[in-house]
Amino acid sequence: MTAVNGHEQVRVRLLVAYDGAPFRGFAINDPTPTVAGVLARALEQVCQHPVSLTCAGRTDAGVHAWGQVVTFDAEARRIDPGPLRKSLNKLCGPEVVVRRVDIVSNDFDARYSAAWRSYRYRILNRLVPDPFLRHQTWHIRRPLDLDAMNEAATCILGSHDFSSFCRRQQVLTADGAEVEAPRTRRVLHAEWAREADDLVRFEIAAGSFCYRMVRSLVGIMVQIGLGERPVTDMAEVLEARHRDLRGLLAPPHGLVFWDVGYPER
Amino acid sequence: MTAVNGHEQVRVRLLVAYDGAPFRGFAINDPTPTVAGVLARALEQVCQHPVSLTCAGRTDAGVHAWGQVVTFDAEARRIDPGPLRKSLNKLCGPEVVVRRVDIVSNDFDARYSAAWRSYRYRILNRLVPDPFLRHQTWHIRRPLDLDAMNEAATCILGSHDFSSFCRRQQVLTADGAEVEAPRTRRVLHAEWAREADDLVRFEIAAGSFCYRMVRSLVGIMVQIGLGERPVTDMAEVLEARHRDLRGLLAPPHGLVFWDVGYPER
Repeated sequence: MTAVNGHEQVRVRLLVAYDGAPFRGFAINDPTPTVAGVLARALEQVCQHPVSLTCAGRTDAGVHAWGQVVTFDAEARRIDPGPLRKSLNKLCGPEVVVRRVDIVSNDFDARYSAAWRSYRYRILNRLVPDPFLRHQTWHIRRPLDLDAMNEAATCILGSHDFSSFCRRQQVLTADGAEVEAPRTRRVLHAEWAREADDLVRFEIAAGSFCYRMVRSLVGIMVQIGLGERPVTDMAEVLEARHRDLRGLLAPPHGLVFWDVGYPER
Repeated sequence: MTAVNGHEQVRVRLLVAYDGAPFRGFAINDPTPTVAGVLARALEQVCQHPVSLTCAGRTDAGVHAWGQVVTFDAEARRIDPGPLRKSLNKLCGPEVVVRRVDIVSNDFDARYSAAWRSYRYRILNRLVPDPFLRHQTWHIRRPLDLDAMNEAATCILGSHDFSSFCRRQQVLTADGAEVEAPRTRRVLHAEWAREADDLVRFEIAAGSFCYRMVRSLVGIMVQIGLGERPVTDMAEVLEARHRDLRGLLAPPHGLVFWDVGYPER
């Protein structure tokens, strides 16, 4: 425990699901509506003090989450996990749902304690669309060759420089210099499967992801699955480390930030 | 085949799914947005002549459909089922999807040829809501007693006067007199089941339904399932034939017009 202004502080972990459609992504960016904006406003109303949120994965505009993890510090006297979840779910509205509230040790951090993250991408693969799946699946009319897509998916397993699939981002070093963020990532799992007759799902887990990486990977694998590109393109594009070759960007509404793994302590 | 203005006419049957949320029900009621309004505008654009739609079940505002059946007459030269489905799905937008187009015999009528209709109602029955199911399920936090609800459901099997569960409606007789529409209906099937852990589903089939009948029935059965009313209330309210006793009206977004049965001919 630490104390601020004489009040004991606790670190709180939230497990959060959200429909990404109405939001410009997770990270606060006032005045645009963001998930963190909604959560922070609700938390500040309950805690009666400002809160600063850390999340396991900053999802992009329109991307959903089932198992997003968020941590923040609050005055201990304001936090009672059961009632807090109930209040937050009243205040946040139906698009953002707090599934769990836990008090965790002060050195637990939603972002830096995470060992891996996973995403799921769903495609409705049939001629006729479905009005009930339109917000959570990418509708592709022509049949996808899942075997070819899985062959492509195996190319990305392990550690690779994903420059071909991620936008460049500048970061500041400790001494204030602006450098390009590294784009090497370790992919632990990447697999396409048939969830139901016409419903196809991609699951990917990695230590971390760079910006738009999953949607770029899904995009090229869909082109391979449609026969628009040979399966050998996957390894070639990956090795080229150049975004010009990457092809299609899958739409955000098929993507769900699914789960985060924290090592047992 | 018949002919109008020298053009051969065909009767066309559509199988239609829709998300009811953006619509004030099925029946055309300009200028409010309705499912029939969207379909008729698209059909008139393709057929280049006015069309008059008949449906198997006129769903209420906010109620969804998976297997709605619609018939209309059109000039034969305008109708080619495959391309027609494609054009309609482009014109109708993502909320209304034409799943099938068939040319049927001239005496087939979506409404009068139907032997039965079925509805499904889904409830998310757990403490924490789900942002992805919020448009298609009624969220009820306290646990429901499905056995009690099924005991109540058996009371409505067979032919009954459902005046306790349906709003009065005036209809015109052949000689122009205004009389009350009969509210006797034959229920063929009525059953609650667990679709998944926290997901509860009611299925009901009947020759036909009167206005708001399913939502009224679901409402009282939910009150029984929560222990707010004894299971014996179901038979008592049914026999009373008086709406004042009926209780809760379930919200429309949990309800789906599911299927229609036509006798083989």
